[in-house]
Amino acid sequence: MLSAIAVPDLPEVAPGDDLAALIAAAVRESCDPPGLTGEDVLVIAHKVVSKAEGMVRSLREVAPGPRAIKLAREHGKDPRHVQIVLDESRALVRAARGVLICVTRHGFVCANAGVDASNVPAADTVLTLPRDPDASARRIRRRLRELTGTSPAVLITDSFGRAWRHGQVDVTIGCAGLAPLEDWRGRDDTTGRPLKATWIAVADELAAAADLARTKDGMQPVILIRGAGRNVVDEDGPGAAALIRPAAEDLFR
Amino acid sequence: MLSAIAVPDLPEVAPGDDLAALIAAAVRESCDPPGLTGEDVLVIAHKVVSKAEGMVRSLREVAPGPRAIKLAREHGKDPRHVQIVLDESRALVRAARGVLICVTRHGFVCANAGVDASNVPAADTVLTLPRDPDASARRIRRRLRELTGTSPAVLITDSFGRAWRHGQVDVTIGCAGLAPLEDWRGRDDTTGRPLKATWIAVADELAAAADLARTKDGMQPVILIRGAGRNVVDEDGPGAAALIRPAAEDLFR
Repeated sequence: MLSAIAVPDLPEVAPGDDLAALIAAAVRESCDPPGLTGEDVLVIAHKVVSKAEGMVRSLREVAPGPRAIKLAREHGKDPRHVQIVLDESRALVRAARGVLICVTRHGFVCANAGVDASNVPAADTVLTLPRDPDASARRIRRRLRELTGTSPAVLITDSFGRAWRHGQVDVTIGCAGLAPLEDWRGRDDTTGRPLKATWIAVADELAAAADLARTKDGMQPVILIRGAGRNVVDEDGPGAAALIRPAAEDLFR
Repeated sequence: MLSAIAVPDLPEVAPGDDLAALIAAAVRESCDPPGLTGEDVLVIAHKVVSKAEGMVRSLREVAPGPRAIKLAREHGKDPRHVQIVLDESRALVRAARGVLICVTRHGFVCANAGVDASNVPAADTVLTLPRDPDASARRIRRRLRELTGTSPAVLITDSFGRAWRHGQVDVTIGCAGLAPLEDWRGRDDTTGRPLKATWIAVADELAAAADLARTKDGMQPVILIRGAGRNVVDEDGPGAAALIRPAAEDLFR
C-alpha cells in the first residue's frame, strides 16, 4: 500500500531557516507512526526550499531590458516580471496567448520558468526555483540524516502544465535518494512479450501523488509518502536532471 | 491521508466479462476495510477494460495500406501494426526515430495511438484503447452501483510519454464520478494574492498515484484509492474528455 500524508504544523519558512530541522521536528511530533525511516519519501514543494534559500526577487530592483519590455507589451505582463523570467531561462520555447513557455536554466520546460508571484512573503516580490534543486535535495537529505539517523528520499516539486492536456500536475525538479526512472526495458510481461510501458517516471508519479494529499492554500508544503520503499536508494543518485529529455531528442520544442 | 492499494486476486479478463462484478468481488473479499464506499476511487488500467470489451485485433487480419507500409519501412515497424495505429488515429503529430506520436480518435496525444502488443492474450494480436473510455467508466460505475449500492469514482488509465521529460506516467483516459480538474482560479493564496497553480489535473494525479501501488507485470490492473473523496462527485461529470486541450489552443502540435 502507498500512503501520502501532509506533514502538519510546519511554520512559515524564512531565508536561512534549517528546513530539514523543521521537517524532522514536525514529522517526529505529529506523524503516525512518528519519525522517519529510510524507506520514506519526503516530497517538498519547491516554494519552501526557495524561501529557505532566499530565492526571492523584488520587482522594484529589476530594470527590464528591451526584450522583456517587448514581450510584456505583447502578452500583457509586467516587464519586470518578464525580465526575471528571462533571467531564469536558457531559452524561450513558445510565447503565445499570454503564456511564456521557457527552458529554465536547469533544463526544465515550464511556464514562466517557474517564477511565481503567489504565496510569497511580500508584495512586489516573486519566488524563483532553487538554483540547483538536486543539490538542495541532497543537502536536505544529508541534514536529515545528521538529525535523525535515517535517510529518506527527498523530492522537490513544482506544478507544471503539459502539452496536449489541460491542467497542471506536480512533477519532480530535484531529488536525492530515489531512482527517478524505473526501467523495465528488456523485461517481459506475463505472456513473455516485451512490456510496453517500460520506463516509468516514478519521481513524477510520486510528486503527483503527494499533491493529492495537500490542500492548495500553500500551508502543506511537505508530504510524507510511505510504501514506495522499492524506489528509495542509499546513494543520492542522478537526481531530477535524469528526467530532462535533451533538446536534441525532443520532438516538441 | 491518501492511500492506494492494489486490488488482489483479479482473474484474467476475457471478452464479455463483467469487469465491475469481478472488481466488486475482489474488493469485498480482500481489501481492508472490505467493500467500496462512495468516497473511493477505483483506478483501472485500460488493458482489462479493452480486454473485457473485446478491443483485440489480430495482425493476421490486417491488410496494410500504402501509408502504413511507407511509415513501417521508415521506422522499422510491422506494417500491419502501423495500419492499426493509423486506424486508431485522427492525426499523426510526429513520426521520428521509430516513434509515432498520434492523436487518437478520442483526441488523446500519445505514442502509437495507445495500440499495445504487451500483455495481450494471444500472439500476433494487439489491444487498442476502449472505443469510448468515458462511456466505459460510466458503465462500470453504474454496474458497481447495481452490485454494491455504492458509487465510487471510476478512472480508466494508460501510460503515456510526455514532451520534454523522460519516462512515462499513467494518465486518465476515461472517468466517471470525478471532477477531473480542480479549479482554484480566482481563489487567493494565504497572503491574499492569486494562486499560481490554479487548475489541477486531479484525475491524472490519481492515475499517477495508482501506478505507484502496482507492480508492472500486468497482474494488478485495479487500484483502490482512498482519501480523495473531495474530488468524487455524484454525477458522472464531463469525463476525461475535459482533460483534452483542443488542437487550436495547443502550442505543441
